[in-house]
Amino acid sequence: MISFEPIGVIRTPYLDSAPFQPQDDDDQEFYLELKSSFLDALSELEKFRYLYVLFHIDRLDRPVKMHVSPPWAKGRTVGLFASRSPVRPNPIGLSVVRIKKIEGTKIYTSGLDVFDQTPLLDIKPYIKDLDTKLDANYGWLEEPEERDHLVRHIKGEPHEH
Amino acid sequence: MISFEPIGVIRTPYLDSAPFQPQDDDDQEFYLELKSSFLDALSELEKFRYLYVLFHIDRLDRPVKMHVSPPWAKGRTVGLFASRSPVRPNPIGLSVVRIKKIEGTKIYTSGLDVFDQTPLLDIKPYIKDLDTKLDANYGWLEEPEERDHLVRHIKGEPHEH
Repeated sequence: MISFEPIGVIRTPYLDSAPFQPQDDDDQEFYLELKSSFLDALSELEKFRYLYVLFHIDRLDRPVKMHVSPPWAKGRTVGLFASRSPVRPNPIGLSVVRIKKIEGTKIYTSGLDVFDQTPLLDIKPYIKDLDTKLDANYGWLEEPEERDHLVRHIKGEPHEH
Repeated sequence: MISFEPIGVIRTPYLDSAPFQPQDDDDQEFYLELKSSFLDALSELEKFRYLYVLFHIDRLDRPVKMHVSPPWAKGRTVGLFASRSPVRPNPIGLSVVRIKKIEGTKIYTSGLDVFDQTPLLDIKPYIKDLDTKLDANYGWLEEPEERDHLVRHIKGEPHEH
């Protein structure tokens, strides 16, 4: 077993439900609150536009299943590791967010798809070229209907499920 | 404390030293070997071109420092969380790799910047649009000299430190 201690918490407006993916245009307040001992570790971070946020998905107690039906997949079933389902053997969440501003140990960000008070495990700068894979694809989401649905989720556009 | 159990191991040619970043053009053999119980969870994964690999950085015992001097920063000092240093409060590594082929529970990938037998924590499909931030920047690496050095690291081009 490998043990980690949170470096802080994620503060979001989501007390009882959260969107499936970060909503970049959500105007509500989202911030990462790091423990005060990490103040110096944030030096120069504000120069980055995007940030990887790694967190512990701690509010789900559904059993882990090897096959899942993602919300945008219209009943289609795929392997758990071919999905971003939060119900995983190791419930580590990963989101890319925009850094808005940093005040002390509070990092204000674009929308995050997690519950308020989610334990924060790590943050890493998202670096152009290194993390921007221009030839990435949509995998099994390549089918036009599923892809359109996914893109609406990503952009936070209203749509029927 | 939050505890995780590895879902498998990462096999690489690096027994005693590893590059700073994944080398996409490294022709040696790299694969993720998942536990056999996860075979079904890999269904449809091969349709994705890229994959996030989350792992436990388990071979470093240097003390965590709030400021670091990344190898490509020419003596410059930045905050730990403004870097991708492997010496972090929670040593969770994150790499984006290309999926070459999947055979059983072995996922063959492009180069990975980790030691052989590194514990694997999670894998997630890297999805076009969701993870490809076209307006990402280089942060404090924006200065031309450091950026050129970084890009050489990313591309695996030989250069002097």
